[in-house]
Amino acid sequence: MQKLIKPLIQKNDSKIVMVVLDGVGGLPVNGKTELETSNIPNLDALARESACGLHVPVAFGITPGSGPGHLGIFGYDPQEFQIGRGILESLGLGLEVKKTDVAVRCNYATIKDGIIVDRRAGRIPTEQSRRLTEKLQQEIKRIDDVELIFAPGMEHRFAVLLRFPEPLEPDAAMVPDTDPQKEGNPPLSPAPMSKSAEKVSKVAEKLINKAHELLKNEEKANFILTRGFSGLPHIPTFEEAFALKSIAIATYPMYRGLARLVGMDTPSIEGSVEDEIRFLKQNYNDYDFFFLHVKKIDSYGEDGNFDGKAARIEEFDKLLPQILDLKPDVLVITGDHSTPALMKGHSWHPVPVLIKSPYVLGGLCSAFSERECTKGELGIFPAINIMSLALANALRLKKFGA
Amino acid sequence: MQKLIKPLIQKNDSKIVMVVLDGVGGLPVNGKTELETSNIPNLDALARESACGLHVPVAFGITPGSGPGHLGIFGYDPQEFQIGRGILESLGLGLEVKKTDVAVRCNYATIKDGIIVDRRAGRIPTEQSRRLTEKLQQEIKRIDDVELIFAPGMEHRFAVLLRFPEPLEPDAAMVPDTDPQKEGNPPLSPAPMSKSAEKVSKVAEKLINKAHELLKNEEKANFILTRGFSGLPHIPTFEEAFALKSIAIATYPMYRGLARLVGMDTPSIEGSVEDEIRFLKQNYNDYDFFFLHVKKIDSYGEDGNFDGKAARIEEFDKLLPQILDLKPDVLVITGDHSTPALMKGHSWHPVPVLIKSPYVLGGLCSAFSERECTKGELGIFPAINIMSLALANALRLKKFGA
Repeated sequence: MQKLIKPLIQKNDSKIVMVVLDGVGGLPVNGKTELETSNIPNLDALARESACGLHVPVAFGITPGSGPGHLGIFGYDPQEFQIGRGILESLGLGLEVKKTDVAVRCNYATIKDGIIVDRRAGRIPTEQSRRLTEKLQQEIKRIDDVELIFAPGMEHRFAVLLRFPEPLEPDAAMVPDTDPQKEGNPPLSPAPMSKSAEKVSKVAEKLINKAHELLKNEEKANFILTRGFSGLPHIPTFEEAFALKSIAIATYPMYRGLARLVGMDTPSIEGSVEDEIRFLKQNYNDYDFFFLHVKKIDSYGEDGNFDGKAARIEEFDKLLPQILDLKPDVLVITGDHSTPALMKGHSWHPVPVLIKSPYVLGGLCSAFSERECTKGELGIFPAINIMSLALANALRLKKFGA
Repeated sequence: MQKLIKPLIQKNDSKIVMVVLDGVGGLPVNGKTELETSNIPNLDALARESACGLHVPVAFGITPGSGPGHLGIFGYDPQEFQIGRGILESLGLGLEVKKTDVAVRCNYATIKDGIIVDRRAGRIPTEQSRRLTEKLQQEIKRIDDVELIFAPGMEHRFAVLLRFPEPLEPDAAMVPDTDPQKEGNPPLSPAPMSKSAEKVSKVAEKLINKAHELLKNEEKANFILTRGFSGLPHIPTFEEAFALKSIAIATYPMYRGLARLVGMDTPSIEGSVEDEIRFLKQNYNDYDFFFLHVKKIDSYGEDGNFDGKAARIEEFDKLLPQILDLKPDVLVITGDHSTPALMKGHSWHPVPVLIKSPYVLGGLCSAFSERECTKGELGIFPAINIMSLALANALRLKKFGA
């Protein structure tokens, strides 16, 4: 898609706003989905005059994580551009990952006589984990010429960046997980899986040993297990791929991190969706493309809280007129994946999407919902097409061929 | 697609008629599209009993030129088979391009002291351009062993074929445009971009110099700029790909030219759509596949003349019973792309398509329009699938696998 689009890109003054209602797609409980249950007059009215459809985030039947979910709607094939687990964990914990970094996600664990007896160190309290991680950061600032940046997570989890002085060779992060996956086994060795991974492997080994030395007197968290060694993926930026100056408006570090992967500006912001929209208005003159992320809808879905999820959708609906007042040339509203409260987690179901511009048919859907969007002019289509449609509706794509 | 189809092809006596209403797809003005506004009882009745849907010419959001638009509905992937600008221009000006030709589109320009001061020679009148092009043809019939065939175009435009005595190597047409794109610059050199392009480059250089010598006393058109050097694409013919003996019924040279690229017979015909249908009847016994091209719908769309476009659609509707009277085994009616009057040009929007045969569901659409076709049994699908559907409905495809 990007190869096809690139020679066709032209710039203009149009504004594209993409609102991602995280996990908005759902499934019926008592006959109606979360969207169908919620009272959302503004979204419904907008759907009636928009191009509607459902996007398939990765492929039929495939449940996407947040990484692939967002890459898809940003126009990047999530099967081609894969984000390492260490990278995603680090982004989620608010670390700013650089090109020379290798990211690792870690667990505190309990080891006894060389055998892992608890892979999660009894799920130690987050507060204790935070204290231990600060200790590691204080005591292990460098290993050889590599800087280490730690970030505490929930319970037994944390992440660490190995910041090398210069960019590494391809495959340099090919170091296996040391987590043996089952208690009663010794930890595995971070032996290099490629010649170019020797450097990272050595640093990992030293890190594991130093950490054990520092933690050896802890009752439970006396060892660390390392997983998901990974470097930044090579992804063309939004500027390179689409000639768009873009900004992410997101309060959760993970989503700012994902947006940073594709080169969006990602200022740290806090607050409610209303605060996000205020921020959108303040920055409206300075960018071409705005990614506005609404997190809480997904959170309630993950908790299996059907009514709570519906209420969060209603909350957004009340704020929608503020976005419409900006009169963006193209407004896209969709989710990165479905999170049916019924399933208490992400799912594979296609996600409702609406595209508002002067160049749509409209008039095919009576509401913004999974079932109404099946009647729309966009049909059921791969998520990566959303960006080409947004660009086309913004008149930012020239004709293909003569 | 073609690779899948080829081993399944079987011949029979069926007739397939494909009517291309150029640029038929539109967008609403005052709530209704051109198709929805026009009074087309015959098309609507046919849609009610046909398989309907919308085809995507190239990809979501991509606006096709006439070349890619037609290749797609002829069953050729427009991303795989790309038609050079020189070739398309030559076809549009009615030149018959051969396999040993390199086609170039040219502008008359004004040069002064080695600097291009007007890239379009003041848009000289077509009549003057025609006279100059005839002079070039008279004076430059050959360069070395290469025959030159000129064709005048509108205003400052013309095309020239460099007819080599034998087929050229791959990449032999890789010669850059000499148009500097901006006035105030010298013309660029037609330096070869590959080893195999040296021959073409040399001829181009001699052509440019000879033309300048002949034109040097012209007030405005004293130089030529060359663009879009290209040879014929290697496209399997309709006979090779689909085992169909095919004919194009089109009054505009461009569309006959495109049909010739895929090996259709392309007799020169003139007149109205009614004349085209008369010609269809006269030749009905002699071919398996008939491509009938209706141009004027697109022309009015390009002019932004909504009512004019709707009137041209109505005009075709009145003639449709004459085609139905032939009782073709398969009748396909669609467009090569959308040309909404609202946009005054081609657009990316999916194009309504109907396929009439004894083997369809039907009963899903109440009219032939963009919105009604979203309800059809074909859904929204890539244009290249139209040909396999046409062949299947003509019972010309065997079972795949046992």
